Amino acid sequence: MSCTSFSFPSWLQNLPLVEAVALELPPPHLNDNTADWDRFVQALAGRGFSPIHVEPAFLGSFTQAIRRGELAVTAVLGWRGTAWEMLELLPGLHRGQPFRVLGASVDVGTTSLVFTVVDMVEGRILAETAVQNPQVPLGEDILTRILLARRETERSRLQHLLIEVFNDTFEDLSRRHGFSLQSLFALTVAGNTTMTHFLLGLDPTHICREPYIPAVNRFPVYHARDLDLALPPLALVHVFPNVGSYFGGDLIAGIVAAGMHRSKDICLLVDVGTNAEVVLGNREWLIACAGAAGPALEGGVVERGMMAAPGAIDRVRIDLDTLEPTYHVIGGERPKGLCGSGLIDLVAEMFAAGILTPQGKIDTSLPSPRILLNGADGTLYVVTSADETADGLDLCISDIDIGIFLKSKAAMYTILSVITRKVGVSFEELQRICIAGTFGNHIDAAMAVRIGMIPDLPLEVYEGVGNTAGQGAAMLLLDRSLLRDMGEICDRITYVELNVNMELMNEFRGALFLPHTDRRLFPSVRLRGETATS
Amino acid sequence: MSCTSFSFPSWLQNLPLVEAVALELPPPHLNDNTADWDRFVQALAGRGFSPIHVEPAFLGSFTQAIRRGELAVTAVLGWRGTAWEMLELLPGLHRGQPFRVLGASVDVGTTSLVFTVVDMVEGRILAETAVQNPQVPLGEDILTRILLARRETERSRLQHLLIEVFNDTFEDLSRRHGFSLQSLFALTVAGNTTMTHFLLGLDPTHICREPYIPAVNRFPVYHARDLDLALPPLALVHVFPNVGSYFGGDLIAGIVAAGMHRSKDICLLVDVGTNAEVVLGNREWLIACAGAAGPALEGGVVERGMMAAPGAIDRVRIDLDTLEPTYHVIGGERPKGLCGSGLIDLVAEMFAAGILTPQGKIDTSLPSPRILLNGADGTLYVVTSADETADGLDLCISDIDIGIFLKSKAAMYTILSVITRKVGVSFEELQRICIAGTFGNHIDAAMAVRIGMIPDLPLEVYEGVGNTAGQGAAMLLLDRSLLRDMGEICDRITYVELNVNMELMNEFRGALFLPHTDRRLFPSVRLRGETATS
Repeated sequence: MSCTSFSFPSWLQNLPLVEAVALELPPPHLNDNTADWDRFVQALAGRGFSPIHVEPAFLGSFTQAIRRGELAVTAVLGWRGTAWEMLELLPGLHRGQPFRVLGASVDVGTTSLVFTVVDMVEGRILAETAVQNPQVPLGEDILTRILLARRETERSRLQHLLIEVFNDTFEDLSRRHGFSLQSLFALTVAGNTTMTHFLLGLDPTHICREPYIPAVNRFPVYHARDLDLALPPLALVHVFPNVGSYFGGDLIAGIVAAGMHRSKDICLLVDVGTNAEVVLGNREWLIACAGAAGPALEGGVVERGMMAAPGAIDRVRIDLDTLEPTYHVIGGERPKGLCGSGLIDLVAEMFAAGILTPQGKIDTSLPSPRILLNGADGTLYVVTSADETADGLDLCISDIDIGIFLKSKAAMYTILSVITRKVGVSFEELQRICIAGTFGNHIDAAMAVRIGMIPDLPLEVYEGVGNTAGQGAAMLLLDRSLLRDMGEICDRITYVELNVNMELMNEFRGALFLPHTDRRLFPSVRLRGETATS
Repeated sequence: MSCTSFSFPSWLQNLPLVEAVALELPPPHLNDNTADWDRFVQALAGRGFSPIHVEPAFLGSFTQAIRRGELAVTAVLGWRGTAWEMLELLPGLHRGQPFRVLGASVDVGTTSLVFTVVDMVEGRILAETAVQNPQVPLGEDILTRILLARRETERSRLQHLLIEVFNDTFEDLSRRHGFSLQSLFALTVAGNTTMTHFLLGLDPTHICREPYIPAVNRFPVYHARDLDLALPPLALVHVFPNVGSYFGGDLIAGIVAAGMHRSKDICLLVDVGTNAEVVLGNREWLIACAGAAGPALEGGVVERGMMAAPGAIDRVRIDLDTLEPTYHVIGGERPKGLCGSGLIDLVAEMFAAGILTPQGKIDTSLPSPRILLNGADGTLYVVTSADETADGLDLCISDIDIGIFLKSKAAMYTILSVITRKVGVSFEELQRICIAGTFGNHIDAAMAVRIGMIPDLPLEVYEGVGNTAGQGAAMLLLDRSLLRDMGEICDRITYVELNVNMELMNEFRGALFLPHTDRRLFPSVRLRGETATS
């Protein structure tokens, strides 16, 4: 719950996606016999709300509200992008408590969902929570779920699991934070392409087959009732559009959150999830690519790797003389494993201390009891001994682990290198590099530079921006002008498929070293014993 | 069934409200990985269909149709006024039978409903029928039904009666004419304001109470499923807008059918129903009013009056010498009564023969066995003796009947006189006078002029235009540009409330005479014995 906290950027306009308007209609008389509804629509136009869209099935009850309120009514209007929709019409004038206009946003990730509830009148976050994706038991990785979804019953089951957890979470948040679900008039959803398809009950089958085609990239505006959500039936559901199978609405939301599309300066946004997704550009142009760089960086794959959760070592320092490590554990518990940032720290510090060679091998000639030669796993470095860990086993990192990790870090550097070269921008021209995700919040840029994972730039260029998908989705609730931005981003972004070619392979091979075979790329990084002038 | 037959005017454009488009999508590949739906929407834009609106709940099945058709699909698109809506998406290319694109129109009258089924591809009428309004048993007149509808259960019952008769009639027509209900992709409805409210389940309570305010004048576009109609769920339902409580969508449809709103010449449209409704204008301006002139003209009120149906005398001639009548009966049956046109003929011929004085009294001094003095009903003229009628009773008209009838004809002339004077147009400036309704089809203009019901103009100015409400509704199915016209007509029409003032009363009193107290208004009409030069 704590990790998703964020504040809204200052450039956000105060243009809520949903607005409540209390108004008294001028009374009809013989010379002004406009119909009730038409009179009301005219009054709304006078307040700047035009055109008005109304769901026909609700017209009868809405017109009765006008009479019940004796021509004094409170309208709840939601912005659809081209028209205002009448979401609710209450008799009488309502301003302030207990009448509230709230919205919710959800970042639908493969492994977890992050919910934010926003007060659209006060422009502030009311509640936040993260829950596990209920589909995980059906398939840890997304491919398993896509294959499962080929059967319509399973696809429907995968959808209902999500809808159920949405409803349960809304219910839970409403109880804990004292608001009514009937106040939630809008929902914004940012997810990767596959998760979005699952949520909307769309067939994701072709997403994972060449040429990798989603069913839908740009979604219509849904109503809560279309998805069986336990919100007001007409509550608007805006789903962030995809650009392609490997570039989903979560990244569009990320671009929005980082404000890249409105920035004069060239920005780079890096989101490390199952894939590493990278967007480069500014208000004039945007280019994006994705590549398999993620698992090791997120703490997966590596033997003792884990998510950034209680029990994970997220900070490591190694004494250059004694080669003894000190570390920090999330939640202050006994250590269970290493999360992404812990792993980066560990490798960077092992390299700085000379425990690791530029080739990524543990130097067995060093006199340390922590360096062990072990048949099966190759050479090991003991980070924590068995008597300190949660499971009573040594917490080690092996040559093999480091090899896997270096592939991930090399992939990351290669992606950044390739995408900047595609558009002829040098790393030095990047004024801002945003690192998104939990990973981005924990990573120590100095350490990541030291291992050659990210370019050797002034550290102030790097910014951990947190869960940008969730932020972008929440921002849309407060600034409806972003709805147009989302569409424009999709229109002008260029998605680059990273084909495995010789150039990429050469680039990658150089980046497998610590920090790189081409030392000129990392002037600030020195090997142990080198002097500042080398 | 026969009386509603009509042909479409030549100015109607071939722009069907619903269009079917068969297309093959360009196959996706790695360098063109647009999503299925987005690819499809792009292809439609290339064919001129943009923007596309899709009901979110149908997106899943629509995208599956694209894959099932292996990128060859047939889309059925309906025009909403600002966007095309995807009504149906079929895998594969469908052109011609058995795949059809049909639409239905309904004129919802207080006493009867007229249905027309149109083939929107071939631009022709497929089927027509008229049925009694199923609400009649709950209240012959509309006021009774409005009072009933104050209770929500009764309002719902009145709505369901209409929906039921819609569904039964569609079912019946589909069986008799060999089409599938699933081919009916659009429904256009023209009705008076109250009937439209009943159909849509809206509260009509305030329509009959000063200041006479409908719940809604301009309706959103409905889907068949909103109204529980047994058509494809997304079949579009366009309801003609009202201008006010006494000026409904039936009249807007009438203006459209008469083409008044596109005419350079000044036209006058007269629709005689329960009220007489009159519209005057051209493509630059339109003015309308309504008044209680109807019942007697429609055959109601008068003792032996009846609707224009089998058994009704609709034509009468009286021999000037013998004072003996000859007549025509609808359906060739024994006469049951007199319909509106029969009544006009009868009064005009009695007047020409001198049986009626200019004051509307039967001249008892004439030597005719058909003129009877009867205590209770005043003086009588026997149109048909008992041995010829259906009920074995003399079919007579009394002084009292004639008095009632003259009030109606005077009201009609007064309305025409007042509305033309309002805008400073003389009768001579009217290039075209359209008389709508069953009444308009039967009326003999020469007779109506003779009694001073309508202005003394060249007879070719008068045109019986039939059921213009039904025609206008059917025309919309074939020419979607009329959708904009309907809105524009509502925007610019001026509705004049006919207040009972002295001027109107003087006007009315003069018009109670045959043809009028001011004989200069009817130069072509001569009293018996007058010479042509008088």
